[in-house]
Amino acid sequence: MRRSARRHRRQASRNGELTSPPSGDQSMRIGIIGLGRMGGNIAQRLMRAGHETVVYDRDPKAVTESVGHGAVGADSLEDMHAKLEEPAIFWVMLPAGDPTEQTIETIAGFAGEGDIIIDGGNSFYKDDIRRSKALAEKGIRYVDVGTSGGVWGLERGYCMMVGGEKAAVDSLDPILEALAPGLGTIPRTPNRMANEGEDPRAEKGYIHAGPAGAGHFVKMVHNGIEYGLMQAYAEGFDILKGKSSDKLPEDERFDLNLTDIAEVWRRGSVISSWLLDLSASALAEDQMLEKFSGKVADSGEGHWTIEAAMEEAVPVNVLSAALFARYRSRVDHTFGDKLLSAMRFGFGGHVEMPQ
Amino acid sequence: MRRSARRHRRQASRNGELTSPPSGDQSMRIGIIGLGRMGGNIAQRLMRAGHETVVYDRDPKAVTESVGHGAVGADSLEDMHAKLEEPAIFWVMLPAGDPTEQTIETIAGFAGEGDIIIDGGNSFYKDDIRRSKALAEKGIRYVDVGTSGGVWGLERGYCMMVGGEKAAVDSLDPILEALAPGLGTIPRTPNRMANEGEDPRAEKGYIHAGPAGAGHFVKMVHNGIEYGLMQAYAEGFDILKGKSSDKLPEDERFDLNLTDIAEVWRRGSVISSWLLDLSASALAEDQMLEKFSGKVADSGEGHWTIEAAMEEAVPVNVLSAALFARYRSRVDHTFGDKLLSAMRFGFGGHVEMPQ
Amino acid sequence: MRRSARRHRRQASRNGELTSPPSGDQSMRIGIIGLGRMGGNIAQRLMRAGHETVVYDRDPKAVTESVGHGAVGADSLEDMHAKLEEPAIFWVMLPAGDPTEQTIETIAGFAGEGDIIIDGGNSFYKDDIRRSKALAEKGIRYVDVGTSGGVWGLERGYCMMVGGEKAAVDSLDPILEALAPGLGTIPRTPNRMANEGEDPRAEKGYIHAGPAGAGHFVKMVHNGIEYGLMQAYAEGFDILKGKSSDKLPEDERFDLNLTDIAEVWRRGSVISSWLLDLSASALAEDQMLEKFSGKVADSGEGHWTIEAAMEEAVPVNVLSAALFARYRSRVDHTFGDKLLSAMRFGFGGHVEMPQ
Amino acid sequence: MRRSARRHRRQASRNGELTSPPSGDQSMRIGIIGLGRMGGNIAQRLMRAGHETVVYDRDPKAVTESVGHGAVGADSLEDMHAKLEEPAIFWVMLPAGDPTEQTIETIAGFAGEGDIIIDGGNSFYKDDIRRSKALAEKGIRYVDVGTSGGVWGLERGYCMMVGGEKAAVDSLDPILEALAPGLGTIPRTPNRMANEGEDPRAEKGYIHAGPAGAGHFVKMVHNGIEYGLMQAYAEGFDILKGKSSDKLPEDERFDLNLTDIAEVWRRGSVISSWLLDLSASALAEDQMLEKFSGKVADSGEGHWTIEAAMEEAVPVNVLSAALFARYRSRVDHTFGDKLLSAMRFGFGGHVEMPQ
Repeated sequence: MRRSARRHRRQASRNGELTSPPSGDQSMRIGIIGLGRMGGNIAQRLMRAGHETVVYDRDPKAVTESVGHGAVGADSLEDMHAKLEEPAIFWVMLPAGDPTEQTIETIAGFAGEGDIIIDGGNSFYKDDIRRSKALAEKGIRYVDVGTSGGVWGLERGYCMMVGGEKAAVDSLDPILEALAPGLGTIPRTPNRMANEGEDPRAEKGYIHAGPAGAGHFVKMVHNGIEYGLMQAYAEGFDILKGKSSDKLPEDERFDLNLTDIAEVWRRGSVISSWLLDLSASALAEDQMLEKFSGKVADSGEGHWTIEAAMEEAVPVNVLSAALFARYRSRVDHTFGDKLLSAMRFGFGGHVEMPQ
Repeated sequence: MRRSARRHRRQASRNGELTSPPSGDQSMRIGIIGLGRMGGNIAQRLMRAGHETVVYDRDPKAVTESVGHGAVGADSLEDMHAKLEEPAIFWVMLPAGDPTEQTIETIAGFAGEGDIIIDGGNSFYKDDIRRSKALAEKGIRYVDVGTSGGVWGLERGYCMMVGGEKAAVDSLDPILEALAPGLGTIPRTPNRMANEGEDPRAEKGYIHAGPAGAGHFVKMVHNGIEYGLMQAYAEGFDILKGKSSDKLPEDERFDLNLTDIAEVWRRGSVISSWLLDLSASALAEDQMLEKFSGKVADSGEGHWTIEAAMEEAVPVNVLSAALFARYRSRVDHTFGDKLLSAMRFGFGGHVEMPQ
Repeated sequence: MRRSARRHRRQASRNGELTSPPSGDQSMRIGIIGLGRMGGNIAQRLMRAGHETVVYDRDPKAVTESVGHGAVGADSLEDMHAKLEEPAIFWVMLPAGDPTEQTIETIAGFAGEGDIIIDGGNSFYKDDIRRSKALAEKGIRYVDVGTSGGVWGLERGYCMMVGGEKAAVDSLDPILEALAPGLGTIPRTPNRMANEGEDPRAEKGYIHAGPAGAGHFVKMVHNGIEYGLMQAYAEGFDILKGKSSDKLPEDERFDLNLTDIAEVWRRGSVISSWLLDLSASALAEDQMLEKFSGKVADSGEGHWTIEAAMEEAVPVNVLSAALFARYRSRVDHTFGDKLLSAMRFGFGGHVEMPQ
Repeated sequence: MRRSARRHRRQASRNGELTSPPSGDQSMRIGIIGLGRMGGNIAQRLMRAGHETVVYDRDPKAVTESVGHGAVGADSLEDMHAKLEEPAIFWVMLPAGDPTEQTIETIAGFAGEGDIIIDGGNSFYKDDIRRSKALAEKGIRYVDVGTSGGVWGLERGYCMMVGGEKAAVDSLDPILEALAPGLGTIPRTPNRMANEGEDPRAEKGYIHAGPAGAGHFVKMVHNGIEYGLMQAYAEGFDILKGKSSDKLPEDERFDLNLTDIAEVWRRGSVISSWLLDLSASALAEDQMLEKFSGKVADSGEGHWTIEAAMEEAVPVNVLSAALFARYRSRVDHTFGDKLLSAMRFGFGGHVEMPQ
């Protein structure tokens, strides 16, 4: 019942969707489950590179939109399976936890030996280890892909950290290479060029990090670092902003232009980074950042990074402080703050009560 | 113009103010400047022990009240000087900063050689070092007394850390002993009793810590530790309280009685302390601590403790975190929080804006 | 086959082991498994209060020693069961993890309906929840007791936080009361006395915290706080000690007597506590603390406390910093430190290499 | 006695030192004091852009080397003054503290009205405020330039944050523009381009941040952030490295290739940055970083940043933790660690002593 990859490609080509010529035998067909911001763009970027996608989403509109970009639509996971070649490759791009877990279970119900299930979301790496073992008993191969790139990935490419057994990961090379940024304009690392035998994939923007779970583990730590970097900038800009406070002596007060400071730091300074680029852009739009509530969410990775550090007995004061700043941002007052006031009242008669 | 100490003591005695007999030659006369919560109680505790006080406050009512307890009132600092014996002893008990600084300057204008100026407040120890040098040029002796005990000191006695030159500090012994708690009912430290030649003052509740500034330095670190201890309890109780959150799986939720927990920890546990006693009392009054706003003040010592640590290159993650928690408690949102949201919006399209 | 409690008591009494008369119907018989520092002392304290104990340990010498104190020895867990009354009560006092888990499994193999298994060790509270459910299916009742008091518990009594179903916990009252410190000489909490209907057990030193797991949860947070308190003192004394460093300007250097400072803070200061008492004693023995290596262990509770905080999204900068300081104390250099040097060399040519 | 700028330029040109033609009237003559890594390169970069430099250093060899690059040598600060045009411009590029302070005092001794003294080093911004006021009384203008770029500045250009009065700073525009990176290949900030009236200097790599001190203040916060960013990476790589520890369960252990991970994160990930580029290069040279001692220095800015935050009551848990990690890296054990062990021994009999 499966249409051949070739035929589909021809058809898609007729629809004018493919922006680059298919790369011969490298063209693969892959199923994408979950067509949100990430999944939809991943499908598009694969098709632009000449790959074929079979797509499924709970929301039929998302499927229709993706079909408009050249994808083959599927009504169900079983339908997707029928439309894939052997071995079937499923890229699950859903929220971590129940949605991902249940989808993988469903696929495992009908998948055959040699099929590959990829979890491209943000799953906890211990779930990967568990799933990989369970699926291996059925001959199904499991690959975890930690994917960084956010809304920019469609154009810039995705940075990917991949876990799983070597043969399975190697077989995905055409797909991963298509999704990755490639060498591009980023200067090569000087010392790296001298080393023979380096894995060339890292420079293209993806790595085979290790066995199942290793991909999501590295991505998890990536996000942990991300929290730390973000909080470092946040605290620095807080100090800059606070320097105009009228609580300071008048001649030690500065009314600083945060927009210009972010901009100038992008140019030749030690702290230039992509996160700083984003900060500069946000500040250029509104130096007061008034549209933001100041309540900051966190996803599992920040939390799991601290857990991993504790399992290894690694001190992580910066990464934990970054996470806790987000927790704190979401409450008006902690109960602990009130207890501090209660103690101060108890020993010193200090009054910290609402008027 | 000075009335003799003897005559005053007799008069005070007639007023029925002295609750214990004067201890012979040990009775001293001292000027107290600043009759707030601390200064007023210090005067009272000294008089209860048979010492004479000459008192001054900007607010004449405070002077009148203290006179009612047996003190000799003074209209001005000069008047106080006239009413003191030689060498005159001035105990300045005012807020750190300008009030203390200006008062000491005024006294220095008329004080004579050998007079002693005590700063019993919370001055920065480097100010003590500077003042001590300046006053020494005029032959005036400067003593800094870090005083812990808060509103409980009148009854329990004050824990005092004293800086200054040995002869001056030794001459104040009767006064310091009267203010200190004394051996009381607190069990003696086992290893200490075995050591011959230990300074007996520490067990009575006061020490000569070192030269000028050393008293306030030790008191400053005391307060830095105090912040850390308080925050440790605050975070612990926060976790206990949060355990009833309906965000947790139902069978991992506990509805804990914080009042009973604080109480039971007072009894035989490793974390029993006076601060826990105060917490237990506050929680027994209202487990929700609803009368407290959750905005917590900090005084100079917490800040100075971190500065001192940085001058010594000592890592102080706990003491600094305790201080920063108070800063954070006093603002609704930091600008940094908003910058975090702006970055998240920039790379991931995450929306954290007010509804 | 079980000897009656009465007969055993008579015999123990003849051995002169019981230091207080048995309290009538309140006398109970209990099995103690694990006769280490904690378990052995718990058995003794129970026997001193007139209870009977049947004891077991892997090490026969430990059993013999306990029998010498009046306990009934058991050769095996089954033997212990035979020597207990119905319902049998087992107090497991073993290291958390495998030893405790396996012992409870073994007991569950032969225990009957209504029997009570107490885990008095430091188990993770989620293990309690899991075990309690599994045992309930067999009609076995599970009680977790978080026990604080360390080597001092035998004389001072143990502070206990108990989780489990009400009827089971209530039935243990005579045992818990015997182990707890009781009202003793610790002053009562002022606000508490005014409240009618307060659970009187908290003032005696034990509480029924909630369902299974609640006891160990409260004990876990207790230990988390303990870490924070300890680190606050540690940092403060570090600053005091560093104040004599010759890197500081000479007139800002103080050579402070840490022994006297610890002692004076015990007396009337806001930071007096039992941990400070212990510090004062250690410093009185050796102000340099030279016998200690500076490598500090941590047990599971500190780690679990941070995990619990993260599950509740509670910021715990102090408690985490305290834990991380212990991790850091156990390594010479982190790899991260080297990476910092590598970056500094990269951007600034700074050289931080070993000579 | 001053040679005209024109004549010198002609001569320098004959020496073949100027790599770009002098930009007409924009060519300036400036004195550079301190020819270390930073000062020497700054002189070179200025000369490459067609400016004239008069150079001085304590070490005559450094002067000779700079003369070899086309600079005019000076024997003393007075000699430099004689060789400069009016108003004379002095760029002091010396270590913060005494060297900078004394040099500025010396120059102030002979400088005339309208002369400009630039402090391009890492001075504390409050020193700038003080100096600026003192020099203004003599009509000397003071400009502080926070300079980032390290050893890469010669080729990449320097990111500069400038404080001082508008007219003085504006007059330095040709020099600052020559030192800055310029628009180069760094993509422009999207939102910025839309805003009319933005200061164009920020995009070139320098800003006039505010009055005297503002330049160094912004640079100080820059360095504070730098510490935070570096520590975030350090902790992340620590966790990655620790994941191979044999203390972990075998199936949760990964042997990760840190070199490839650093490389892949440079490509399309959210945490790409220049510091990551440097890390990738260092790891490519030696994944173990064995040549580094693990003892990490800190300069004044990290410390001052925390002080500034405390003056503003801004919580900075990440920036402070980053600084403290460096302190900690330089000692084997803290005294506080030993006190922890002493307490643990006191309450639990735990033994943490060297074998």
